[in-house]
Amino acid sequence: MKKALLVLLAAACALSAHAKIVTKSIAYKQGDTTLEGYLAYDDAVSGLRPGVLVVHQWLGLTDYEKHRAEMLAQLGYVAFCADIYGQDNRPKSVEEAGPLATKYKTDRTLLRARVNAGLEILKQNELVDSKRIAAIGYCFGGTTVLELARSGADIAGVVSFHGGLDSPTPADDKNIKCKVLCCHGADDPFEKPEDLTAFEQEMRDAKVDWRLIMYGGAVHAFTQQNPGFVNAGAKYNERADKRSWNDMKSFFAEIF
Amino acid sequence: MKKALLVLLAAACALSAHAKIVTKSIAYKQGDTTLEGYLAYDDAVSGLRPGVLVVHQWLGLTDYEKHRAEMLAQLGYVAFCADIYGQDNRPKSVEEAGPLATKYKTDRTLLRARVNAGLEILKQNELVDSKRIAAIGYCFGGTTVLELARSGADIAGVVSFHGGLDSPTPADDKNIKCKVLCCHGADDPFEKPEDLTAFEQEMRDAKVDWRLIMYGGAVHAFTQQNPGFVNAGAKYNERADKRSWNDMKSFFAEIF
Repeated sequence: MKKALLVLLAAACALSAHAKIVTKSIAYKQGDTTLEGYLAYDDAVSGLRPGVLVVHQWLGLTDYEKHRAEMLAQLGYVAFCADIYGQDNRPKSVEEAGPLATKYKTDRTLLRARVNAGLEILKQNELVDSKRIAAIGYCFGGTTVLELARSGADIAGVVSFHGGLDSPTPADDKNIKCKVLCCHGADDPFEKPEDLTAFEQEMRDAKVDWRLIMYGGAVHAFTQQNPGFVNAGAKYNERADKRSWNDMKSFFAEIF
Repeated sequence: MKKALLVLLAAACALSAHAKIVTKSIAYKQGDTTLEGYLAYDDAVSGLRPGVLVVHQWLGLTDYEKHRAEMLAQLGYVAFCADIYGQDNRPKSVEEAGPLATKYKTDRTLLRARVNAGLEILKQNELVDSKRIAAIGYCFGGTTVLELARSGADIAGVVSFHGGLDSPTPADDKNIKCKVLCCHGADDPFEKPEDLTAFEQEMRDAKVDWRLIMYGGAVHAFTQQNPGFVNAGAKYNERADKRSWNDMKSFFAEIF
């Protein structure tokens, strides 16, 4: 009881400090390709803190992911948005985005190299406790953080928000060292029932520590106000957005 | 910021009060049958508070549910364990429990009458805010709280822990007014994939506000140290137990 009291009082004191979210773009390399990510942290927090990698959806690194990074910074984390497509590849339309997303979804080796390059930047950040790192991703980014896990990354956990769960190399699931949370729209028409069933079986076979949350009434892209296109199959759902964000916070409370 | 500070300080002060959990058995009737439930609340909490109905697993009302009620009382709720089988029906073995569970699972009208009788006792409690009531249930009790929802009960939410999700009257889902959370062992061999798929479709068709969480590595009865029998298909899982309890708490934070 005394401990709980002290924790609450400490939290109350921490809240009274005026937070200032610092953000900056960071250019880095994977092979010969220059990537440009986005860092966010709260400079009122002192000491090492957990780091969260944020991986963008199919439209590439946009204000959407930057805003999520700032929300994570407000929670006290160091957040870094990885850039998978590269500094010179910022799709301006869904027509431009489609082939890029397909390129990386069909070349998972390159996808893993790109996301791991972003992870390294986060790990090297002087404010980050490298033993407390997670990665989250949206749609294409959800698929990507699962690939990060399958690459054997030494991190605490990954969260996929409405990510594609199919894997061309399910045998790689045995490399997964971290905990896995999948936040899934129960009415997502882009995720075939057989892909969902296969994913569950793959997690089971590889004895991964995993969870899947199905949000009733939510379709694809339920966390995004502008997923590139809006129709009956891809639409923002405030209820599922808030719930999945809370579920991510609970997940972080457990793994950090 | 100031508001958050005040909330935290208030919570800290509340924690400093010495809680005393009061418990008592309560006999009540459904038709001509005498039932005996179990009430638990914290007498250090003042004012009206949310009420939580707890419905037992197939072995009937045991120390297991009473302990859960006490855990809920420690969280500040008034908890009441309903008795479905009756005061004179306390199974002493799985052989005695089986036919009883089957009796109520095949007579859902009686099951609904029994669980609603328990709900009335909770609603009438002078400490309970009747606008903030939820029901939780384990295994057989999970099925039962879903039937409570399907009976059109005017409550805020139900939580099923490893409950059977099959329904003989899916058309009754249209009566569901409350939010639904199902905590499910991803490896539960007692829940057929087709029952799970049917449940999801029924929730979808009836436009229920629902969520399903699948806990990887958990089988049936994952919250119970002693589910009556322990084998590969029904076994305690501490990780899934703790996670599902936390998920229930988040659900309550949302609905109350």
